[in-house]
Amino acid sequence: MSKTIYVLNGPNLNLLGKREPAIYGYDTLLDVERLCNEAATAHGFSIRFLQSNAEYQLIDWIHEARETACGIVINPAAYTHTSVALHDALASFAPPVLEVHISNVHRRESFRHKSYVSLVADGVICGCGIQGYAFGIERVVALLKSQHKAAN
Amino acid sequence: MSKTIYVLNGPNLNLLGKREPAIYGYDTLLDVERLCNEAATAHGFSIRFLQSNAEYQLIDWIHEARETACGIVINPAAYTHTSVALHDALASFAPPVLEVHISNVHRRESFRHKSYVSLVADGVICGCGIQGYAFGIERVVALLKSQHKAAN
Amino acid sequence: MSKTIYVLNGPNLNLLGKREPAIYGYDTLLDVERLCNEAATAHGFSIRFLQSNAEYQLIDWIHEARETACGIVINPAAYTHTSVALHDALASFAPPVLEVHISNVHRRESFRHKSYVSLVADGVICGCGIQGYAFGIERVVALLKSQHKAAN
Amino acid sequence: MSKTIYVLNGPNLNLLGKREPAIYGYDTLLDVERLCNEAATAHGFSIRFLQSNAEYQLIDWIHEARETACGIVINPAAYTHTSVALHDALASFAPPVLEVHISNVHRRESFRHKSYVSLVADGVICGCGIQGYAFGIERVVALLKSQHKAAN
Amino acid sequence: MSKTIYVLNGPNLNLLGKREPAIYGYDTLLDVERLCNEAATAHGFSIRFLQSNAEYQLIDWIHEARETACGIVINPAAYTHTSVALHDALASFAPPVLEVHISNVHRRESFRHKSYVSLVADGVICGCGIQGYAFGIERVVALLKSQHKAAN
Amino acid sequence: MSKTIYVLNGPNLNLLGKREPAIYGYDTLLDVERLCNEAATAHGFSIRFLQSNAEYQLIDWIHEARETACGIVINPAAYTHTSVALHDALASFAPPVLEVHISNVHRRESFRHKSYVSLVADGVICGCGIQGYAFGIERVVALLKSQHKAAN
Amino acid sequence: MSKTIYVLNGPNLNLLGKREPAIYGYDTLLDVERLCNEAATAHGFSIRFLQSNAEYQLIDWIHEARETACGIVINPAAYTHTSVALHDALASFAPPVLEVHISNVHRRESFRHKSYVSLVADGVICGCGIQGYAFGIERVVALLKSQHKAAN
Amino acid sequence: MSKTIYVLNGPNLNLLGKREPAIYGYDTLLDVERLCNEAATAHGFSIRFLQSNAEYQLIDWIHEARETACGIVINPAAYTHTSVALHDALASFAPPVLEVHISNVHRRESFRHKSYVSLVADGVICGCGIQGYAFGIERVVALLKSQHKAAN
Amino acid sequence: MSKTIYVLNGPNLNLLGKREPAIYGYDTLLDVERLCNEAATAHGFSIRFLQSNAEYQLIDWIHEARETACGIVINPAAYTHTSVALHDALASFAPPVLEVHISNVHRRESFRHKSYVSLVADGVICGCGIQGYAFGIERVVALLKSQHKAAN
Amino acid sequence: MSKTIYVLNGPNLNLLGKREPAIYGYDTLLDVERLCNEAATAHGFSIRFLQSNAEYQLIDWIHEARETACGIVINPAAYTHTSVALHDALASFAPPVLEVHISNVHRRESFRHKSYVSLVADGVICGCGIQGYAFGIERVVALLKSQHKAAN
Amino acid sequence: MSKTIYVLNGPNLNLLGKREPAIYGYDTLLDVERLCNEAATAHGFSIRFLQSNAEYQLIDWIHEARETACGIVINPAAYTHTSVALHDALASFAPPVLEVHISNVHRRESFRHKSYVSLVADGVICGCGIQGYAFGIERVVALLKSQHKAAN
Amino acid sequence: MSKTIYVLNGPNLNLLGKREPAIYGYDTLLDVERLCNEAATAHGFSIRFLQSNAEYQLIDWIHEARETACGIVINPAAYTHTSVALHDALASFAPPVLEVHISNVHRRESFRHKSYVSLVADGVICGCGIQGYAFGIERVVALLKSQHKAAN
Repeated sequence: MSKTIYVLNGPNLNLLGKREPAIYGYDTLLDVERLCNEAATAHGFSIRFLQSNAEYQLIDWIHEARETACGIVINPAAYTHTSVALHDALASFAPPVLEVHISNVHRRESFRHKSYVSLVADGVICGCGIQGYAFGIERVVALLKSQHKAAN
Repeated sequence: MSKTIYVLNGPNLNLLGKREPAIYGYDTLLDVERLCNEAATAHGFSIRFLQSNAEYQLIDWIHEARETACGIVINPAAYTHTSVALHDALASFAPPVLEVHISNVHRRESFRHKSYVSLVADGVICGCGIQGYAFGIERVVALLKSQHKAAN
Repeated sequence: MSKTIYVLNGPNLNLLGKREPAIYGYDTLLDVERLCNEAATAHGFSIRFLQSNAEYQLIDWIHEARETACGIVINPAAYTHTSVALHDALASFAPPVLEVHISNVHRRESFRHKSYVSLVADGVICGCGIQGYAFGIERVVALLKSQHKAAN
Repeated sequence: MSKTIYVLNGPNLNLLGKREPAIYGYDTLLDVERLCNEAATAHGFSIRFLQSNAEYQLIDWIHEARETACGIVINPAAYTHTSVALHDALASFAPPVLEVHISNVHRRESFRHKSYVSLVADGVICGCGIQGYAFGIERVVALLKSQHKAAN
Repeated sequence: MSKTIYVLNGPNLNLLGKREPAIYGYDTLLDVERLCNEAATAHGFSIRFLQSNAEYQLIDWIHEARETACGIVINPAAYTHTSVALHDALASFAPPVLEVHISNVHRRESFRHKSYVSLVADGVICGCGIQGYAFGIERVVALLKSQHKAAN
Repeated sequence: MSKTIYVLNGPNLNLLGKREPAIYGYDTLLDVERLCNEAATAHGFSIRFLQSNAEYQLIDWIHEARETACGIVINPAAYTHTSVALHDALASFAPPVLEVHISNVHRRESFRHKSYVSLVADGVICGCGIQGYAFGIERVVALLKSQHKAAN
Repeated sequence: MSKTIYVLNGPNLNLLGKREPAIYGYDTLLDVERLCNEAATAHGFSIRFLQSNAEYQLIDWIHEARETACGIVINPAAYTHTSVALHDALASFAPPVLEVHISNVHRRESFRHKSYVSLVADGVICGCGIQGYAFGIERVVALLKSQHKAAN
Repeated sequence: MSKTIYVLNGPNLNLLGKREPAIYGYDTLLDVERLCNEAATAHGFSIRFLQSNAEYQLIDWIHEARETACGIVINPAAYTHTSVALHDALASFAPPVLEVHISNVHRRESFRHKSYVSLVADGVICGCGIQGYAFGIERVVALLKSQHKAAN
Repeated sequence: MSKTIYVLNGPNLNLLGKREPAIYGYDTLLDVERLCNEAATAHGFSIRFLQSNAEYQLIDWIHEARETACGIVINPAAYTHTSVALHDALASFAPPVLEVHISNVHRRESFRHKSYVSLVADGVICGCGIQGYAFGIERVVALLKSQHKAAN
Repeated sequence: MSKTIYVLNGPNLNLLGKREPAIYGYDTLLDVERLCNEAATAHGFSIRFLQSNAEYQLIDWIHEARETACGIVINPAAYTHTSVALHDALASFAPPVLEVHISNVHRRESFRHKSYVSLVADGVICGCGIQGYAFGIERVVALLKSQHKAAN
Repeated sequence: MSKTIYVLNGPNLNLLGKREPAIYGYDTLLDVERLCNEAATAHGFSIRFLQSNAEYQLIDWIHEARETACGIVINPAAYTHTSVALHDALASFAPPVLEVHISNVHRRESFRHKSYVSLVADGVICGCGIQGYAFGIERVVALLKSQHKAAN
Repeated sequence: MSKTIYVLNGPNLNLLGKREPAIYGYDTLLDVERLCNEAATAHGFSIRFLQSNAEYQLIDWIHEARETACGIVINPAAYTHTSVALHDALASFAPPVLEVHISNVHRRESFRHKSYVSLVADGVICGCGIQGYAFGIERVVALLKSQHKAAN
């Protein structure tokens, strides 16, 4: 079984730390990657950390993950609210999927209250800052372990 | 006049036969291509069979088709429900457009009940499995023939 | 097993070819029957071709079909959008049901966008003119054949 | 040109004068027929006065009227609000159509505020009691005369 | 005063026991009639038990009941949700009206949550299986008795 | 008792015959006045014929009518759909109120489908051209006569 | 197996017979208890009859009933329309649940048309006065007997 | 500064592990308490672990927490979706608030998609099973530490 | 600082006491003026009491009040629900604004439930009869005094 | 006749003066009680001043008030928007009911714009700070006096 | 052909520069007039610059413009969102109509997002400050020139 | 400070002048570029003129513009109505943003009435043909100049 968790980041997250810090804070995507790395390594897992502004690129990575990953932690950013295509790609991915949002989307504009991704994610973590990514990885690990236990 | 029918496939259809077979069946996109080929050849037409996960790529192919195609059969998959851009591209394409869905989208989630593509398609075929593609091609052919007849 | 496909036509379709030809074309219901006949005969099936303006009559024929038919192709016309009773009758019919509309209802008034019949049909074909009936019959035949194959 | 105006009455109007007189008054359908007769005769027209509780029967009469009538005055009663089939039948009828309601439907339950028939009627008269029928016939006559004048 | 209770059954109920038994159970309409008969006879009443797939037929029977019945128990089936005409017919009927549904319609499709009949029924019983008919008859009897007592 | 019927005309009706003739025809407001005059005189009534683009002016006239008129025929034009103030003024007016629209507003933009005036009018006549004014006056007269009869 | 049926009554029902008799009648809660007692005893069952204005108290009783009851008849009164907590408590209760309303809630304010309890009840009885409680108990008994029979 | 984190549990959570295990799993509330205890102790914090079916009790505890707690982790269960009172109580509580749901509420009934608590919570964690509580406590701790750092 | 409070009255209030007394009572606008006068004088303030059926006149008075008034008590009557222009005029007025309705608008037609004025008023008083005006003036006075105190 | 006015306060109002002073000000509930006391005493009335976070407690007090109070002034706080049970309790209380909100709820979150209590209150006062309670009491007194006058 | 462009300003714009400068800036209506004058003169056109708080006055000016103007630039202010009458007046005006808003209405209250005027305007310019008026005039001029060119 | 204004064009605008000329006119994108160039040069600015059918490409260019541009004029075409990602990218861009649409989108399909871009644009210009681009550039220049003036 693969021990790689994909960590996927959607549009505009390349600007993390530089854009609207009142909402998203001062940590950069590099800080997020470092945090995810630590969280995964602590449990004997590795990560593949990716970001793209292109919807199709995220879909392609999810398709790739079907062969090579044991779980996905995804911050779909703006595509959360508009992409049925992302929904369908994730629906075809059997292992655990955790959705993460840095800010509490429920306190923001109403168009951020609907998530296509939540309909196919195992869990959703929002408003926990970049720590939410660590929770996401820990949850993926926990689900894999309990599945492993159940299978043995 | 061109005798090429474009058969365009939207996001996640590259996984056909591998993803959610309870909904989409076990035929692959290669099977669909073969079927379309037969249907077109039987009437003296050829096809250009394409798939992409990228919205812009589908748009580019539709623009290309303005010069080189006599009709389009399109399964826009998830973009059916979200892409005004696809709608606008097809609106600029004069020859017949047939929209095809493998499953009966009306029996699925409510967000699949709205189609921007149906607003600019000549006909819509859904829930006929991959046979729907063959119907789409036959309808394009029939429309072209009746136009031809009307023009002569 | 019965080899008769019921082809049911809803209200106002008796006027086909005489009413609003810009929408429905110049073919009459007799032309539709001839077309269906050809499509069915080509595969060794026969049809029972019926039209009524009465909702109850269509329901009665569907009940009758439970005993005598191997599939239904139905153009419910205006009852598509208003008849829960038709929905319930078709829900009690196990073999394939194909819904056909001559025009592309999605480009017409918004009250034509909702279909109770689509919720219980196997497939839906609209905007393919009267050729849609032929597609409907071919799909019924294909479904029966694949069921036959699966059962053997 | 025919000089017969069809006066069609929908479900429950056979009870007129006996049912909910606070809303519909004490005149019976016979009184309505007499009133219509007078109004038509005064202008050299005759009427064919009909009532049915069956949706299909009203549709059949409208189809018949395509051959034999110069106009329709219709009180569709409850079918006003639910029958797309009636809408479609009337849409296929070229001469003047006047919709009449005895009570002012806008002051009653909200489900009586939507009319499919109004979308295809030339004029709508409601809340004028049974006098509304007379207005309907006078309007049909006026429209026919002005068309006649325009044609000469 | 009449001692006959009309028991009216709407579309598709002729298939009771044969159609979707997971929802409607295995009892047939004959079983329902027998049950109603017992319930009525026990209190010195008789029933007139009727079923039709035609909306107009149900309306006609309600009109007839105005002269000959002391109450109505009605399972309007699919017409529950779509028939304003049925609503209007029942509004013209003064004695008790009890609406019965075999299944709990509130746990089914959302289009079954609206009832035009409930707006004019005295009581509504759903999800009690065919026993609901017996309750309906018992309630009619109880209402008649308390009216009788109040009048004396 | 006053024998004057107020005929009130709302905004833009001063342009009648000059504005959008495809919708409103070629008759001018003077033609309407002449028509109303004839209709009223025939029954021994007179009219006070007024037009204003100002909402307050229409309200003032309705208040005045409380003292001097036996009925109102009103074409509230655009204020039909937006003026609660007009609604309230008419609600304080006891004698008959008839609402008239030259065109069939139900076939036009959706914002013309709601009428505050219909909630307080006795009857509503639309799509009968300027003849609708004559019907309005005849209805006012009929109501007054039947009240007169009932009072004697 | 327990032979006790819980009869639970929600807020304001302690005022029954004293409050809004036009809607709820003159019977008191004591009368209801007596009626339930008779209905249960006739079939060899006993009841535990409770009323509370507190949502949590009703929940606690439902939890208690998981251990000690063979069925619940509940009139949730105002909590019907607002309490997801009650819904969740009942969802955890396996034996039959019957929902009862004294008045026909469908003829009252629109906020009374939605019921969270109906989503988890086996049956719903409304508008049958306090007799509805007896029907509720009889239905619980009938369901238990048929389960008993099915199990043997 | 207090070092006690309140862990509040809403209605029906006393049944955890016994009720609908397909949704909520087999862990009991005692297991949750143990998990929270470990998570808090690891960072030098203690917990006060409480459950109630009563809305007012949760409010009272939140008021109490204003004096004695450094943060709240709350699983409001059914009150999430209906309690403005809980929203207002939490709005008056300045330290960190984390909302936890064991199941992914976004994949369940639509009435579970709206949360009044999310409008005043710092973060929301759902669908992570009882591990979500541990994440909630870790997030409270992290927020307190970063505030502490910022203040020094 | 000015010591004049404007009391503005919207359309149809000139009929107060004469129109729909069941809703508005028998006091006239003169009674209201006397009441306001007393309330203001008691605190050393004077009033400017105005009524108009014209939206623009109310706007003009509000503009005038910007120079000459220390507060506004306004009963916008029907314009409450429809006038964005009144909203904008009041938004430009800095001193206290109190909105008054004689009847309890929340118990009347649904179109009276939305108020543009409430969005810019300090307080709203409805259903207190004409006494509401006195409360409005007392509130304006209290606000001015507390501002005065705060400023000193 | 009782001369006691109940002043009822809903959830979180025990924190008045300590919670969100920008919205609710610095006065405490004790200040409110003192104010109400003065207002009542001035007219020869006394008050019973109560607060609870529990919905059932408010309902119980309203039931108690049926026997012992001549009027109710109620600030239902958060239950305003969610409690049908409170609505029903107040509906059973015949003497005057005045609803008070300290802040102008119409300028706050949209979920505060709907009030179940307003549907059964005589008057509603909001945005007048704690002075609104005094107005509430004065209005109760005025209503009682005018009823007294009308009765003599 | 007339060379006068009407520049019409709706309610409250007389306060421009004095009211809510954070939204509307510090320029006065006189500044706007000067700017428009310059823009028109530069192209050989003149302007008629008008403001009114009265809906009817704006309508009257539009009617006048039918005879004397070659185009209209209109800032309808609050009437944008509520006046069907203004819509109808402009619909009767054949030459170019440009709608201007000083602020970006799409970023303000939701009731400012709907414009009746946009449905009949050629173009809409918002959020460009008073410069938007200059753009409006330039666009009118450009349209007139291109029409002139097309006509020659 | 940069003196480059980015002019961004969304999907299908590469077909400008060739597609649906009745809506978009006969000018090509090259004509638009020339026009923008002139407008910018006249004020001492230059432009970077770009078009893409890909959402991500537009986002990338906006990110690039954060470093190199002093303003953006954007015609987002179909992405206007569907792209939250574009909204978020523009929200991270501090200098002026002007949104331009060639046609008046408010007169077209209702799905074109919502704009995510308008929520973050300074101004919006639509229905001014390609001249709208020139207005956009002039507005960017004017805003920069007034900021420059304010800063000095």
